[in-house]
Amino acid sequence: MPEEKSFHLTPEEFRRQGRAVIDWIADYYEKIESFPVLSQVEPGQIRASLPHEPPPHGEAFEAVLKDVDNLIMPGITHWQSPNFFAFFPANTSGPSILGELLSAGLGVQGMLWATSPACTELETHVLDWVADMLGLPAKFKSDGAGGGVIQDSASSAALCAVLAARERATLFESNRRGCDGRLIAYCSAQTHSSVEKAVKVAGLGRENLRLIETDESLAMRADALAQQIRKDKEAGLIPCFVCATIGTTSSNAIDPIPDIGVLCNKEGLWLHVDSAMSGTAAICPEYRHINQGLELADSYCFNPHKWMFTNFDCDCFYVADRKTLIQTLSILPEYLRNKATESGAVIDYRDWHVPLGRRFRSLKLWFVIRHYGVEGLRHHIRRHIELAQNFAGWVRADEQFELCAPAPLNLVCFRHIAGDEFNQKLEERLNRSGKLYLTHTLLKNHYVLRFCIGQTHTEERHVRQAWQHIRQTAEEVRGSR
Amino acid sequence: MPEEKSFHLTPEEFRRQGRAVIDWIADYYEKIESFPVLSQVEPGQIRASLPHEPPPHGEAFEAVLKDVDNLIMPGITHWQSPNFFAFFPANTSGPSILGELLSAGLGVQGMLWATSPACTELETHVLDWVADMLGLPAKFKSDGAGGGVIQDSASSAALCAVLAARERATLFESNRRGCDGRLIAYCSAQTHSSVEKAVKVAGLGRENLRLIETDESLAMRADALAQQIRKDKEAGLIPCFVCATIGTTSSNAIDPIPDIGVLCNKEGLWLHVDSAMSGTAAICPEYRHINQGLELADSYCFNPHKWMFTNFDCDCFYVADRKTLIQTLSILPEYLRNKATESGAVIDYRDWHVPLGRRFRSLKLWFVIRHYGVEGLRHHIRRHIELAQNFAGWVRADEQFELCAPAPLNLVCFRHIAGDEFNQKLEERLNRSGKLYLTHTLLKNHYVLRFCIGQTHTEERHVRQAWQHIRQTAEEVRGSR
Repeated sequence: MPEEKSFHLTPEEFRRQGRAVIDWIADYYEKIESFPVLSQVEPGQIRASLPHEPPPHGEAFEAVLKDVDNLIMPGITHWQSPNFFAFFPANTSGPSILGELLSAGLGVQGMLWATSPACTELETHVLDWVADMLGLPAKFKSDGAGGGVIQDSASSAALCAVLAARERATLFESNRRGCDGRLIAYCSAQTHSSVEKAVKVAGLGRENLRLIETDESLAMRADALAQQIRKDKEAGLIPCFVCATIGTTSSNAIDPIPDIGVLCNKEGLWLHVDSAMSGTAAICPEYRHINQGLELADSYCFNPHKWMFTNFDCDCFYVADRKTLIQTLSILPEYLRNKATESGAVIDYRDWHVPLGRRFRSLKLWFVIRHYGVEGLRHHIRRHIELAQNFAGWVRADEQFELCAPAPLNLVCFRHIAGDEFNQKLEERLNRSGKLYLTHTLLKNHYVLRFCIGQTHTEERHVRQAWQHIRQTAEEVRGSR
Repeated sequence: MPEEKSFHLTPEEFRRQGRAVIDWIADYYEKIESFPVLSQVEPGQIRASLPHEPPPHGEAFEAVLKDVDNLIMPGITHWQSPNFFAFFPANTSGPSILGELLSAGLGVQGMLWATSPACTELETHVLDWVADMLGLPAKFKSDGAGGGVIQDSASSAALCAVLAARERATLFESNRRGCDGRLIAYCSAQTHSSVEKAVKVAGLGRENLRLIETDESLAMRADALAQQIRKDKEAGLIPCFVCATIGTTSSNAIDPIPDIGVLCNKEGLWLHVDSAMSGTAAICPEYRHINQGLELADSYCFNPHKWMFTNFDCDCFYVADRKTLIQTLSILPEYLRNKATESGAVIDYRDWHVPLGRRFRSLKLWFVIRHYGVEGLRHHIRRHIELAQNFAGWVRADEQFELCAPAPLNLVCFRHIAGDEFNQKLEERLNRSGKLYLTHTLLKNHYVLRFCIGQTHTEERHVRQAWQHIRQTAEEVRGSR
């Protein structure tokens, strides 16, 4: 019988094309600074360059890779550029890219322990490592009642925390009968929008999320929180959840976890602590103080995919009491039953998040930790914070600019003294230049520029050039008025 | 100034290590049949082989790759083995692996159009292609009021559908004030457990999910659904959501979408259609009839990561009215505001799902479609269905075995005539042999084996060998009693 056409890549074709992609990526990083950081295309421009119909017949790999260069690259905003200072970073590194590659190659789906024990056990193990690396409270480790799991994002972690809080507060009645509109959640106006989203998704309702007042440093006021909880209880409502933040998105403010924690413990509220970007800093003993009070929290998350050289998606979500989380999210249809699950001796991570299926995401985190070692990771975190502190110093020393919030770590909020409209123009012109990318926020009703240093390859020269370019562009904006 | 130790891979090191991982993967696929399909390790075995402490200093790449072989591989269940017939497949292919690699290398985060326009526009474009390839109703394409988005899983798609249904039914009051326990959702007892999970997550409550009776073929009875909706309305409840399935997980049953659709449209219920695995079959004109009635649905999903050679995670989720979905999930904090978003001319996919951040997942799907072309994809789908039909024929012809459900596509439900306990033993022994992996379900209270053919490299010889091994093992189980 003649061999039938298979359409699949032969192993040799895969090796050849694989090398080409590896080289493409290496070349990309070598020339990444030559691209405008923020893509300069117009809406619809990329789509207009793509064929209207899918290809009826297979095409050569070389043609596809050429299209990546010609059609896709103009529409890329270069998150891996050392001149990327926008939002929070989503940094990555060689070992992480190769860990993700290996994960794609193995192609295992770790919904159950049995569907790849290594996928589950490496994840549990590495998350215990990470807990030690950050000095997290022992209760978040898997050898007690807690444990960690990789979620796609801090948004999903926040949702799981809200759900577990909802069920704990109602003794699993909400899962059974649905929400009844009396459950109340708390955060500050500076808390990430993912908490509002989670509260809506979980059926609590936006009006039942209280935005607690912040102090001068934009941190949540624990006394105001206490007052609001009391008020809600008096009104017959059921306070159940607080999200506190170590390093808010807008300004890197740090909520007073010890005070909030004591209050939550006393009142029986679930305390979730979100440290999506800043959490990584705790890998350095000198910054570990940011985690003060964390032993009072019920859950915690931070994102190695932001500032720990591990590519998106990799959010580490820890709970002190995994039973509650699992009971909240567990489903067990017959087609997923198996001996290992029934034995109770294993973790089935499908019950730790919304999706059933899951990739082997711990591989990339493991690759990163083994490549850099704790020492290498500390080195870069220290360097980024040092660079940000230098930048903050330059802002402070320049009378045309002002700092707009404390800069405890690697985020600097600053503005030109010429007012909101000026800063908006400045931001636009800077980003249009392609030389750097930064974003803004509103702090105390002022338009404020955010400069976050966390990109893997950002060095002193990039920060110096950026500051020079900011000052020069400000002069130009002044001149053009 | 002397160059400071950077810890990062140099481009040359990345090229060298990258080639090693590519070769590792190619080697893996060449020897994949030599591994037991289902991992044979005991709970805790993998963890026990890993060092208790994270490495203080970086380690050599070669050491890590060696540990993958020695410590990780024993704990892998080989989803990419051609002898994997369990659950639904999660197949992948060379082009998909390389697309995922490129995505990791670019490391862009597509939460907003502006944060990489190509990430958004390629996704919209490829999902329109896929809609055409499957012959989906035009209303699901982006040039009208609808559109598609890649979710991580059908579970997340189901959740988004439930949420949009909840909000449409309550005019966005649930988002505002929370659920009130009166919203009712419907599916059949054969519907995937993700719908129960979604209904709990969304705050509707499990008791408000009605499991509608199925007919002889295990498909939902539209008349029973109509009756239940009427009953609930009479009780003052608010029916809002139906999930119908094209190809259930247990037995590949196909719910009567046309009848259910007419009913949902008349009663104003959101109809979500889940065709996670079977959806891919519609790429062949001769199987497109499975989509009959889909023009009556509000949302639809299927998973290229199951049966279209695209690695997990890639669920294509379509809605007919994107506005409702976006309004359900939208949040807009100041730090995400930008000109493109305000212009209304672009899609910001962060409002189409729970997570904020997102990978460039359409790259791998684009790579797959361009590599295989529609022709290549059809070839393999046809082949898998043909192999499954052969297998079903062998079961039918063997008096020791019986078919337990219609086998319309690539899933065969069958059992030995010797009863539940026998089949359970047979399953265990087969999976322990390492020669193949299959799973079971309960159908009409009988323990039934599921044999699903959808692995990328499964050929006739694997199916033949499997059947031979099943028959032989059954003889052994009989002998051992």
